[in-house]
Amino acid sequence: MSEKPEKTKKLSTEPYKGVRDFYPVDMAIQNYIFDTWKKTAESFGYEEYGASVLEPANLYKAKSGDEIVNEQTYTFIDRGEREVTLRPEMTPTLARMVAAKKRELVFPLRWYSIPNLFRYEQPQRGRVREHWQLNVDLFGIDGISADVEIISLASQVMKDFGATESDFLIKISSREWLDKWLEWLALELGDDLKTQTNKEHLFKLLDIKDKDPERFAAGLKKIRSDLTPNLVLGKEIDWDAIEKNLNVKTKSLTSKLKAAGINNAIIDLTSVIRGFDYYTGIVFEIYDTDPKNRRALFGGGRYDDLTSLFGGDRIPAVGFGMGDVTIRDFLETRGLLPKTKAPADYYICVMGQEEAAFAEKIAKNLRDNGSRVAVDFTYKKIGDQIKSADKRGILNVIVIGPEEAKNGKVKVKNLKSGEEKAL
Amino acid sequence: MSEKPEKTKKLSTEPYKGVRDFYPVDMAIQNYIFDTWKKTAESFGYEEYGASVLEPANLYKAKSGDEIVNEQTYTFIDRGEREVTLRPEMTPTLARMVAAKKRELVFPLRWYSIPNLFRYEQPQRGRVREHWQLNVDLFGIDGISADVEIISLASQVMKDFGATESDFLIKISSREWLDKWLEWLALELGDDLKTQTNKEHLFKLLDIKDKDPERFAAGLKKIRSDLTPNLVLGKEIDWDAIEKNLNVKTKSLTSKLKAAGINNAIIDLTSVIRGFDYYTGIVFEIYDTDPKNRRALFGGGRYDDLTSLFGGDRIPAVGFGMGDVTIRDFLETRGLLPKTKAPADYYICVMGQEEAAFAEKIAKNLRDNGSRVAVDFTYKKIGDQIKSADKRGILNVIVIGPEEAKNGKVKVKNLKSGEEKAL
Repeated sequence: MSEKPEKTKKLSTEPYKGVRDFYPVDMAIQNYIFDTWKKTAESFGYEEYGASVLEPANLYKAKSGDEIVNEQTYTFIDRGEREVTLRPEMTPTLARMVAAKKRELVFPLRWYSIPNLFRYEQPQRGRVREHWQLNVDLFGIDGISADVEIISLASQVMKDFGATESDFLIKISSREWLDKWLEWLALELGDDLKTQTNKEHLFKLLDIKDKDPERFAAGLKKIRSDLTPNLVLGKEIDWDAIEKNLNVKTKSLTSKLKAAGINNAIIDLTSVIRGFDYYTGIVFEIYDTDPKNRRALFGGGRYDDLTSLFGGDRIPAVGFGMGDVTIRDFLETRGLLPKTKAPADYYICVMGQEEAAFAEKIAKNLRDNGSRVAVDFTYKKIGDQIKSADKRGILNVIVIGPEEAKNGKVKVKNLKSGEEKAL
Repeated sequence: MSEKPEKTKKLSTEPYKGVRDFYPVDMAIQNYIFDTWKKTAESFGYEEYGASVLEPANLYKAKSGDEIVNEQTYTFIDRGEREVTLRPEMTPTLARMVAAKKRELVFPLRWYSIPNLFRYEQPQRGRVREHWQLNVDLFGIDGISADVEIISLASQVMKDFGATESDFLIKISSREWLDKWLEWLALELGDDLKTQTNKEHLFKLLDIKDKDPERFAAGLKKIRSDLTPNLVLGKEIDWDAIEKNLNVKTKSLTSKLKAAGINNAIIDLTSVIRGFDYYTGIVFEIYDTDPKNRRALFGGGRYDDLTSLFGGDRIPAVGFGMGDVTIRDFLETRGLLPKTKAPADYYICVMGQEEAAFAEKIAKNLRDNGSRVAVDFTYKKIGDQIKSADKRGILNVIVIGPEEAKNGKVKVKNLKSGEEKAL
């Protein structure tokens, strides 16, 4: 612990490294994003849940990639010697909560949440240490209908933000299909790929195929050298043949999505993997169609085994997570962010302390009728008070002086049109 | 760090100690509280801001009581050797943000936020390790009008929750008035009370006067023995005489509050102190009038010097904080919590996989018209699906079988009235 600073020493006004302050103008955007998320999720009958950012560290040790738990979490020991983690993702919390009450809950569950998540990483564009994420999950349905619903909901969020299908692309793959492909690859190439280690290597590698081609190539070389020399991962792979193998399932999914009004979904087995180990079925990612933005905007998939970590039966689940930073970037770039609303409908300018009580009365009446009203109690010159209203973008101004307080008659001036009306 | 558990070991479904999981039924209450807070604050022209829960630990060392920083915070060292604290209160963050941009911001500022706050304490009723708090603050107005506005807003929140003036009592004191009283007391009793240490002791002591009479009596005895024997804190204090001394100021405030429609505010110099050291002017607390609930529901006050910790001029400020746990308790006890809303307006029951696409189309149409619609994709017996809708409290049910899918005609059944209508 560092020394207690002198009271006279100037404190820094900087926030903690890698996190954001939300001044009202930024908070308004954040609220617009959250409100849109809520509206879309609720339109599909999803209910909001929540939990603390603090979780027992053990929760993340069983299923996440090791890299995340060991190097990228905020994990510390509390004053009671408990090892605690600031949640890096919401899905383990969700699985914990569902497992805890699975006998009381009415399945299928449609749940969403907007948690803040923490990762200890070097701050850079689109990568902050704290971000918020819409999490949408459907528990209790095995069939493809649930996959279709979750992808439809993801697509609808984009549309509710004002994006059209030409603005984004839904790429779909499947852990199951990939496993089949790996089996096929093993038959073609030899047995070593069946071993878990190489499979995991290959998964992680495929995950960075488009994002970081150099690391992908280096990793592939490494795997190749780990395999017996006659196994040729260097040989050209016939992706078409693989995809033909899986035609039936993928066609069924894309045709169902088309029926649900989604025309911008494609099957792309190898470029959609998702970082987490717990996916068991379909996985999908949504991409900006602008070639300047090559990273996935967000994604999700099916994870049928996660609740069984807590004992008892497996519960089928499918869901996705959508971060605030990437979607805000997308909306800004595409010009889809709405204009910020003024903080009040009326601004009441008050000449002097003597009229304060009358001004409060007028304000109260307007508020009781559902308006948002700010009163200027600076008692500066009325011209300055009106300027203050204008700077805030507030349209309607009411001036209260001795005359108004005396006869109780009040006028509203519209600062845009200049028009004046009795209230 | 503990060992990585075996993948086969059952994980606990318990949340971290002292924090709460919010299942949808609890989240709905939480959202009702937050929405009411937002609505009231915005009706007074307040704008929402936000910040991360992570703050540099230094932020809390300058002004908070020592007890809080040293024993009650979550403070740890991050992977980059920074000392970081999970915010225990919002005001230092707010002062930091205001100080950072004081040249760009348009004063007066009316800001609110609903942060989660962390305290490391033994969990008990009304005391959890994480709670949410409405923070409302007005920056840039010196005069009493700002104090009146903040107290009016606090009172209006209670009224917007459905409480009447007989349900709660606003007790008001003032650091300034208390200082005057202490001066007077010192003149009466001797010089020792003028020293800072005894003053702080007395403040802390007065803070627990009603909450913990035994500790109050013991502390008073301790102060008395620390003072020179001829200073008689044991002598009966003439509170009436003291209050008369301060009559002018307090009368002005209560009459202004009456003019603003507030009839349940009283001056109570010694029982309202507030724990934090940074208050400089009026302080107030709102109490449940039910004698079974003796702790303050919430409170606030004026703190004019906090931004000067960051350098530059002082900015006058007044505000309050209102916690979710105490207000929820209050609303529950008073029967003021609204009934929870069903998660959807319509529940669509689907006979088989073949009708899924048609069901999705109906759902989409309803959603496009602003309704919340959940579709049952379990393909269980229709009776079971209707039961499922009923359990969730969803009123309107649509059944889709081959017939409906073929001729496109769909009926809505109201589960309460039994009435059926064509959609």
